[in-house]
Amino acid sequence: MEGLTKIDDLGKPRVVIVGGGFGGLELAKALANAPVQVVLIDKQNYHTFQPLLYQVATAGLDEGDIVSPFRKILNHQDNFYFRLAEVTSIDPTAQVVETSIGLLRYDFLVLATGANTNYFGDEVMAKNAIAIKNVEDALELRNTVLSNFEQALQLGDHEQLNSMLDFVIVGGGPTGVEIAGALSELRTHVFPKDYREIDFKEMDIHVVQSGPVLLKGMSANASAKSLEYLEKLGVQVWLDTRVKSYDGYTVTLNNGKQLIARTLIWAAGVTGAPIPGLNDDCLVSGNRYLVDEYNRVHGYDNVFAIGDIALMKTEKYPDGHPMVAQPALQQGRQLGDNIQRQLNGGLMEHFVYDDKGAMATIGRNHAVADIKLFGREIHLDGFIAWLAWSFIHVISLVSFRNRIGVFFTWAWNYFTQDKGLRYIIGKTKAPLVEQDMEEKAIV
Amino acid sequence: MEGLTKIDDLGKPRVVIVGGGFGGLELAKALANAPVQVVLIDKQNYHTFQPLLYQVATAGLDEGDIVSPFRKILNHQDNFYFRLAEVTSIDPTAQVVETSIGLLRYDFLVLATGANTNYFGDEVMAKNAIAIKNVEDALELRNTVLSNFEQALQLGDHEQLNSMLDFVIVGGGPTGVEIAGALSELRTHVFPKDYREIDFKEMDIHVVQSGPVLLKGMSANASAKSLEYLEKLGVQVWLDTRVKSYDGYTVTLNNGKQLIARTLIWAAGVTGAPIPGLNDDCLVSGNRYLVDEYNRVHGYDNVFAIGDIALMKTEKYPDGHPMVAQPALQQGRQLGDNIQRQLNGGLMEHFVYDDKGAMATIGRNHAVADIKLFGREIHLDGFIAWLAWSFIHVISLVSFRNRIGVFFTWAWNYFTQDKGLRYIIGKTKAPLVEQDMEEKAIV
Repeated sequence: MEGLTKIDDLGKPRVVIVGGGFGGLELAKALANAPVQVVLIDKQNYHTFQPLLYQVATAGLDEGDIVSPFRKILNHQDNFYFRLAEVTSIDPTAQVVETSIGLLRYDFLVLATGANTNYFGDEVMAKNAIAIKNVEDALELRNTVLSNFEQALQLGDHEQLNSMLDFVIVGGGPTGVEIAGALSELRTHVFPKDYREIDFKEMDIHVVQSGPVLLKGMSANASAKSLEYLEKLGVQVWLDTRVKSYDGYTVTLNNGKQLIARTLIWAAGVTGAPIPGLNDDCLVSGNRYLVDEYNRVHGYDNVFAIGDIALMKTEKYPDGHPMVAQPALQQGRQLGDNIQRQLNGGLMEHFVYDDKGAMATIGRNHAVADIKLFGREIHLDGFIAWLAWSFIHVISLVSFRNRIGVFFTWAWNYFTQDKGLRYIIGKTKAPLVEQDMEEKAIV
Repeated sequence: MEGLTKIDDLGKPRVVIVGGGFGGLELAKALANAPVQVVLIDKQNYHTFQPLLYQVATAGLDEGDIVSPFRKILNHQDNFYFRLAEVTSIDPTAQVVETSIGLLRYDFLVLATGANTNYFGDEVMAKNAIAIKNVEDALELRNTVLSNFEQALQLGDHEQLNSMLDFVIVGGGPTGVEIAGALSELRTHVFPKDYREIDFKEMDIHVVQSGPVLLKGMSANASAKSLEYLEKLGVQVWLDTRVKSYDGYTVTLNNGKQLIARTLIWAAGVTGAPIPGLNDDCLVSGNRYLVDEYNRVHGYDNVFAIGDIALMKTEKYPDGHPMVAQPALQQGRQLGDNIQRQLNGGLMEHFVYDDKGAMATIGRNHAVADIKLFGREIHLDGFIAWLAWSFIHVISLVSFRNRIGVFFTWAWNYFTQDKGLRYIIGKTKAPLVEQDMEEKAIV
């Protein structure tokens, strides 16, 4: 541990936070006035508002609308330090993490690395599918959808043409449902104006859901309404169905049916993103760290995990909390308080999840929401749920600037019935299709 | 020329436009009501407002603020067709262009391919420098500037550290001057808050200009004032100086002096982007097509060139018009009218360039402008020129949406003295610097 001290060390305990998602960022903020040095490490220099990634993927928002640089969010906080790096391992005995830019000593270590897309070991799927877990994914999906249509213009063969126009979404959770709704909007309101030469009756959108209902975990009302809305939008929903394989062109379902699509969007599951170095017995199902009610990783005093990567078994949530923003935010805030309590010689407090409900939007003017208020659960659907969804997402954005930007863009998109961000910039998934020479003339 | 007819052919003459910059786009619009089929071919699916690329490169604007998809701009125009493709050659005898997606017959061919960065054959420079000719360039520069600072935090060696903080801009034209001003703004107002651990006195910005003045071609007042403003901002301007070589680290000037910088921005010259297939004698200096006063390429009746790629020698402009937006826009509009005149059996009209002047901005509140109004030339500088520059750039943006977006972002940046778009998304030029192991600890 010889070397240069590039981070000021004023003798204060150092809290190292790995990952600046909802949990990590909230924790860093909660420690603003604590007598500690806060070091946040992330592979990106920005926080991503993941719930709206699907809108970036469908040309509804710019990536700049939903990301905020960490330094911008926290540069007024004197005890805050950021490092753009990847943490490669933990040495809990020496209290050091190894990163891509060097070693870093910690007094408190908080793992907030979130979750990655889970292909359940299917490498062919991983290669051919597109996920929507980060900004690069979302931009790649946007570019791919748009370039599919550009390519479709040149195709004469009916199956080849359809392969470009059809989309298969695997997973009927919020992300799957929301992206299906957004693609339907593009099909109805936007693409027919752009691609007059294409017959949009040929564009099919499929949602494949392994279970018997959409939005599993939400109310029966939300499941039923979301199915109704998607079917009204012309989305084909396959319940109790799984995708067996996908080679980049043919999707084989477990009922024997085959779909042809150049684009398969994988929204079917996530797995924790743990870091090597801790005892094996703290890593449990789904690659999550087993934590106690103070978010302490099993077997450690000063190593914590919060958010998606943490599995806290409680009476009410024996399989852990849902892997969404709220538990991460609440754990981040509470851990900030608990670290300060501990430093003051006090006792830490139990984490109790305050479930505020869940919501999902399905295209223009429609959403479903289960809102928990004063111990009662209210089910909303239709336009009122859509208004609630829009309002809550705008105010939840991290920066005021993003709030104004998203509000303006949504208002614009709503009243023009347009999504203006239809540019192909950056990586595209599908390579240009090899076409027969005879199809190449466009005379 | 066998094959599928994927573009409707209603028996109307087909105008094929190669390139959707200022000239090509304006021409497509000018033909809106003409009895022709308009086919625009571009490698991108969007038009780029090039004069503001440098603001994307310096985190002042999002790329979405300055690009507009062609289909969005023109999807209301019945006779308009777009193809995302690259034109690889021209067969003027058969009246066909060969593209990356097939062959395309034309009745009128308009080359509006613009210009590329000119490294004057220096391949090492081309590999190590960053240009700002397109959106991908601008994003790469933004990412590189930001990641330089992230890396600088870990460097102990003084020269290594400085190599990250110093920027060399080659070329003292509008782009060079504007990017130097924007980097200065970041140095003064933005980065010191983000990177408190860095001493920004160490950040140097150099502009290397081969001639005796900045903004060659503008008035003596503009040249003098721009130099004054840059020096006031602490930019080091090297007049009558050339860069001899750059290996990615050491910049060698022709006066023997060496500068150390990981980032060299090349804004020193452009060259036309011609397409193979036309007679050699129509290609003149700077790889531009020699055109007559109707923008007809020398030796052809139905092949035209407009904008940067066209060289029209007139009495007033014996070396051709300046390679900026105005001549391209005016030629595009005029050619649209001339094609219609020709179709109606009328005579085409000469192109006469209406020079409206030139302007450049240098950081916050300062700009220079030579405005030509009713035959008189007015020289503006300082705040009033900056207001004029801002107003003209906002109203010149292609879509109403972009105008609102840029106006809002600029107002925000101005009043907060901030540039909020400081995220690293996509490609970065510099690889992570190999550091000595002893420098790797950040304890």
